[in-house]
Amino acid sequence: MKKRTAVGIDVGGTINKVGLIDETGAILQRADFVTADAHSPAEWLNRVETAILRFKKSGWKPVGIGAGVPGFVDFQRGYIYQLTNIDGWSNEPIAEKLRSRFGLPAFVDNDVNAMALGECTFGAGRKHSNAVFATLGTGVGGAVYINGALCRGAHSMAGEIGHIPIFMNGHKTREGRGGLETYVGNKSITRNAAKAVRSGRKSLILQLAGGNIKNITPKLIADAAHKKDPLALEVFDKMADCLATAFAGVTYLLQPEVIIVGGGVSRCGKPLFAPLRAHLKERLNPIFATRISVEPAALGNRAGMIGCACLVFQAG
Amino acid sequence: MKKRTAVGIDVGGTINKVGLIDETGAILQRADFVTADAHSPAEWLNRVETAILRFKKSGWKPVGIGAGVPGFVDFQRGYIYQLTNIDGWSNEPIAEKLRSRFGLPAFVDNDVNAMALGECTFGAGRKHSNAVFATLGTGVGGAVYINGALCRGAHSMAGEIGHIPIFMNGHKTREGRGGLETYVGNKSITRNAAKAVRSGRKSLILQLAGGNIKNITPKLIADAAHKKDPLALEVFDKMADCLATAFAGVTYLLQPEVIIVGGGVSRCGKPLFAPLRAHLKERLNPIFATRISVEPAALGNRAGMIGCACLVFQAG
Repeated sequence: MKKRTAVGIDVGGTINKVGLIDETGAILQRADFVTADAHSPAEWLNRVETAILRFKKSGWKPVGIGAGVPGFVDFQRGYIYQLTNIDGWSNEPIAEKLRSRFGLPAFVDNDVNAMALGECTFGAGRKHSNAVFATLGTGVGGAVYINGALCRGAHSMAGEIGHIPIFMNGHKTREGRGGLETYVGNKSITRNAAKAVRSGRKSLILQLAGGNIKNITPKLIADAAHKKDPLALEVFDKMADCLATAFAGVTYLLQPEVIIVGGGVSRCGKPLFAPLRAHLKERLNPIFATRISVEPAALGNRAGMIGCACLVFQAG
Repeated sequence: MKKRTAVGIDVGGTINKVGLIDETGAILQRADFVTADAHSPAEWLNRVETAILRFKKSGWKPVGIGAGVPGFVDFQRGYIYQLTNIDGWSNEPIAEKLRSRFGLPAFVDNDVNAMALGECTFGAGRKHSNAVFATLGTGVGGAVYINGALCRGAHSMAGEIGHIPIFMNGHKTREGRGGLETYVGNKSITRNAAKAVRSGRKSLILQLAGGNIKNITPKLIADAAHKKDPLALEVFDKMADCLATAFAGVTYLLQPEVIIVGGGVSRCGKPLFAPLRAHLKERLNPIFATRISVEPAALGNRAGMIGCACLVFQAG
């Protein structure tokens, strides 16, 4: 008997990753399309139809459709309030539109929840039923997975790990004071490295940036860290300790089995994860420290697409 | 038809509150006993038997027994690792002992989880299915209630709100650095008030303490705050802001509908809750701030006993 399959659609600012996923998390087919070609929900539905027809031509009968979108969503209602970096999608009952167009169960969630569900089902969290997921990029996003299900909060807004305060009297933003994201986002670590270099600190980072401070990126800092450049290691150590502070709070509150870290910066590997694990251990009572692990995300940029299919499989 | 009833036992350091509770949360009978009279689990079971026999004599047939204990418990196994301030209870499979002795389903949880379950079922959280509970006393305890159920974490240790860091580089303890409890416990607020008085600050607090700084208690500070003593209000404002910092993190992570605050200090009322709500609002994006409320616990010192009965009713 053929395994059940579902269509997972990871709606990104540049590309829509569309996959036919089976219940083992395997991607059987892909039918991506460029986001700019589908800038209204109506055009997007046409592109999705093309993808689904292609899957069906190959003999598959997906049992449902899941979409993950970058923005603010009411999962229960399958409703998009607003997307980030994609115009023309405000107040869209998108799950209902998918359902009526394709006659299949359909679900929509925000992209970070979708990634987390993918990772928790088939990736770094597959052996656990309690996990917290964090993505490190320009900002810090997150999701909470408890007793084998996403915890979306009272109004689908939970998981905002980036806004957890780590300094009561820290930077003031619209989100409050001292939020994690103001210390560990891409901009912060680039700024920290640039500031040190500008103040005369010698570092491989500047060399990798071709002598131009403005060319410094998190990737370059990571490259320098892998070569044991002291400044680059310091920048990562500081970032890791800020993360560890927020993660300690998360661990005391929820005691997940694992904290999964994804997103661009997480691909830096050891220069991030070694100090992150060490600092988290320092910041927890041993009884908690010995019962939590920190793992890099395992599914890379397929996590969201796979997670979208999981939204379908989980529903029945 | 008679309502179902359950026996709820709130095991305290001084007294065991034992109640026969019905499914509406009403306490039909009480049969408390002094904890010192039952200092081994075997003696405790005898006292519980006396209580249950008394309930049965009145014609009730409880459908199960729930116990809440001050200490470290594995809820799934019904197992007590260790109690705080009560000796002789280490490594006790207490739920199993209750079951085999009384032939009834039996459950054991830590006392804070029991209180939270009581409050979430019949008290301040009864209208909500997502809540976070905090108790303010010598320490700060807590519990997490998601989708209508307690979230106990991977090893029954979740809910340690008191250890959430609010200052990354704050006080160092065995639990890490800058934990909430080190700033807002009874000792901290007494110390803050005493320090100000000692430095020459005039305050009604000293008068209420009979002129002796050593007599200052949280209760006296609260009394002074109710009379609008500026120092007392300041002490509460500072405590409230520390709590708001941790609660902001909790709200961003979980988006509960309500944060319920119980424990001795919470009975101070307005001097605590007014600044707590104001500071939490400052520390959240409006989209979160308008969707969370902070409420005092409603069941007083009966919350634990009632919650213990809820452990039974929830199980089936």
